[in-house]
Amino acid sequence: MTQSIIALLTDFGSRDPYVGVMKGVILARCPTAQLVDLTHKIAAQNIRQAAYLLGTAYRYFPPETIFLVVVDPGVGTQRRALAIRSLHGSFVAPDNGVLSAVLEREAIGAAVELSVPVGSSHTFHGRDVFAPAAGLLASGVEIETLGQVIDPRTLVRLPVATFRREDREWRGEVIHCDHFGNLITSIGAFRWQGDSLLMDDDGDQPLVIDPRAVEVQIAETQVRGIRRTYGEADPDALLALISSDGSLEIAVNGGSAADRLDVKIGGVITLLFPDQEHHG
Amino acid sequence: MTQSIIALLTDFGSRDPYVGVMKGVILARCPTAQLVDLTHKIAAQNIRQAAYLLGTAYRYFPPETIFLVVVDPGVGTQRRALAIRSLHGSFVAPDNGVLSAVLEREAIGAAVELSVPVGSSHTFHGRDVFAPAAGLLASGVEIETLGQVIDPRTLVRLPVATFRREDREWRGEVIHCDHFGNLITSIGAFRWQGDSLLMDDDGDQPLVIDPRAVEVQIAETQVRGIRRTYGEADPDALLALISSDGSLEIAVNGGSAADRLDVKIGGVITLLFPDQEHHG
Amino acid sequence: MTQSIIALLTDFGSRDPYVGVMKGVILARCPTAQLVDLTHKIAAQNIRQAAYLLGTAYRYFPPETIFLVVVDPGVGTQRRALAIRSLHGSFVAPDNGVLSAVLEREAIGAAVELSVPVGSSHTFHGRDVFAPAAGLLASGVEIETLGQVIDPRTLVRLPVATFRREDREWRGEVIHCDHFGNLITSIGAFRWQGDSLLMDDDGDQPLVIDPRAVEVQIAETQVRGIRRTYGEADPDALLALISSDGSLEIAVNGGSAADRLDVKIGGVITLLFPDQEHHG
Repeated sequence: MTQSIIALLTDFGSRDPYVGVMKGVILARCPTAQLVDLTHKIAAQNIRQAAYLLGTAYRYFPPETIFLVVVDPGVGTQRRALAIRSLHGSFVAPDNGVLSAVLEREAIGAAVELSVPVGSSHTFHGRDVFAPAAGLLASGVEIETLGQVIDPRTLVRLPVATFRREDREWRGEVIHCDHFGNLITSIGAFRWQGDSLLMDDDGDQPLVIDPRAVEVQIAETQVRGIRRTYGEADPDALLALISSDGSLEIAVNGGSAADRLDVKIGGVITLLFPDQEHHG
Repeated sequence: MTQSIIALLTDFGSRDPYVGVMKGVILARCPTAQLVDLTHKIAAQNIRQAAYLLGTAYRYFPPETIFLVVVDPGVGTQRRALAIRSLHGSFVAPDNGVLSAVLEREAIGAAVELSVPVGSSHTFHGRDVFAPAAGLLASGVEIETLGQVIDPRTLVRLPVATFRREDREWRGEVIHCDHFGNLITSIGAFRWQGDSLLMDDDGDQPLVIDPRAVEVQIAETQVRGIRRTYGEADPDALLALISSDGSLEIAVNGGSAADRLDVKIGGVITLLFPDQEHHG
Repeated sequence: MTQSIIALLTDFGSRDPYVGVMKGVILARCPTAQLVDLTHKIAAQNIRQAAYLLGTAYRYFPPETIFLVVVDPGVGTQRRALAIRSLHGSFVAPDNGVLSAVLEREAIGAAVELSVPVGSSHTFHGRDVFAPAAGLLASGVEIETLGQVIDPRTLVRLPVATFRREDREWRGEVIHCDHFGNLITSIGAFRWQGDSLLMDDDGDQPLVIDPRAVEVQIAETQVRGIRRTYGEADPDALLALISSDGSLEIAVNGGSAADRLDVKIGGVITLLFPDQEHHG
């Protein structure tokens, strides 16, 4: 038997035994499961943030990983409980859009509406519905046995990280503020090639961008150029760079951009191409 | 060999390597142990909160689980260090009442006063006394070899979640405020049956309660009726419902009851039965 | 195959999936690894605090443990990425001094500059460089295959916990404030022998100290004597005692010394021997 891995993402925080209890429920079904916390500090009931962070993380896990995602403001109402299977893992979650970033990128091999066990609480389906399903998957049970097979096209999908591109002005938003106060934005996905930035376009050729020529505007502040590392900026200076998931990021070298700028999740960010021909 | 599971509950927080060091000590004795965090955010030295939260959690784990519970204001003094065995797991903890909720509900098969190893610190028995004992239990050692067998009736017991019932007025207290700001109270234990609430009584028949007819009073606020789910209340409205461990809970749909009400742990909550005959 | 243990120490916090992603990367190389969190709440980019806390923790783990330490303000710059092997474990970390406490105490059997995989990000070497190396070590790969062997004498070393001893006055500093508000200082390493405190000296004989006769000065406050346990002081009283890693600690019985005293990391602490001949 291979090692089953279950990665957990919730908004349960760390003050209560809620996550631990879900793990107990899993281990009662698969005592040898490898349990990994993605984060439990999703802002309470923030489905879109959870969807975004799951999207940045899941492809770094082995392809058989089971992701247990419980951000569930509609617990106890008519929203469906799901298990879905893709080539990059299985996902157990409420059908409220929290899997949107996964659904954008992955082909879905099977989708099931989970049965709600008799005696389940109305307030903690993480414990009573989702964790039992994840534990059964980890123990080798087939996903189709966990409930009724449904059409993947009916799953709830939300916009996660969107941005609007005009020729010389791209406009996006701040979608996450990380532990260091780095502001992650919806403008991406970039990758470096030598001294140039590439971005995959709808066409065959990626866009080629001169990182020194662009200008970033956020919260009435301008930043010139996109750097490769925090250390390229002066200490305590604001800079723009490419985050580890390929999106445009605003940071302070040795400090916190969130503390420096008066900007919140959803705040507008603009990338300007004043002097360059940027199509590759 | 079966997989040994150790679930940890402490007030050590997450800022220091204290919990990690305890796990290192365990793994030196049982490298394959399955380690699960219940929570390490118990309020510093709050034995009663730890006892309550352990009581809500332990029965969701497999019955052979070892619970390592270190909330230990008396570390280094004469308080005893314990290991006890029940049908729902083994428990390693100081003898200060932190196991009270377990002792209320479980028959104790064996209780041992742990020996304190030579060279133990006076300030960190989690590392020097409790974790070694848990690791040895996980490796298959018999509990009786860990110290001197003692009479379970001599163990320290504290009142955990108590409430006073008069005919048309039940009075309890807030015993926990969770990550979402939900206020968990000592009035329980309820369960739903269709549209009725049941509560097990001393008699043979459970009490049958009409959830729409009761009134909850807390912090000079009244709430009419007990709901099944958060989503049954209007957005941002205060509501009463039954928590996932069966006790009366005060919440705000999409918000925090702790932020809304001026009430602390220990604050009084009253459940009134104004218009109904509630005995089943 | 023995169970590989990987202990993680970072400044990544718990708000993002950064730590979880590193674990995913590890498990893709060694699905059965035993993963333990030391702490992820190192103050952002505080190399010296990380070095100190790692030094208090690593020797409690089994000797084959792999320590993955990512506090990395210079990510993407020219600082080297390391893997080193000692008798008390392997260590994967940036070459910025974060291993200083380990290097002070352990003989290094091998040191390697890690190769940076093609396509690595410039901002998250925890995911792209360090976690893959730790995963490969866990899977049984030899450390020498992970990059170029280097001379251990070239590794960056920082002063971690130093204090200055004059005959009747020792001067150190606060090096850590723990979750309970206990102030851990650089004055150590002490151990108890009966009612006396011992401290290993350069000579053959340890210093013998009468703990009742010494006086501690910190933040314009004096504390007389060094206690064995928190409970020896009056409730809510300030006291000096020996921490679980052998250093002088300032605490409040049932409270927080950090809240009581106006002292920060780096604040001066003095130990005075007014009336005693303290050489053994």
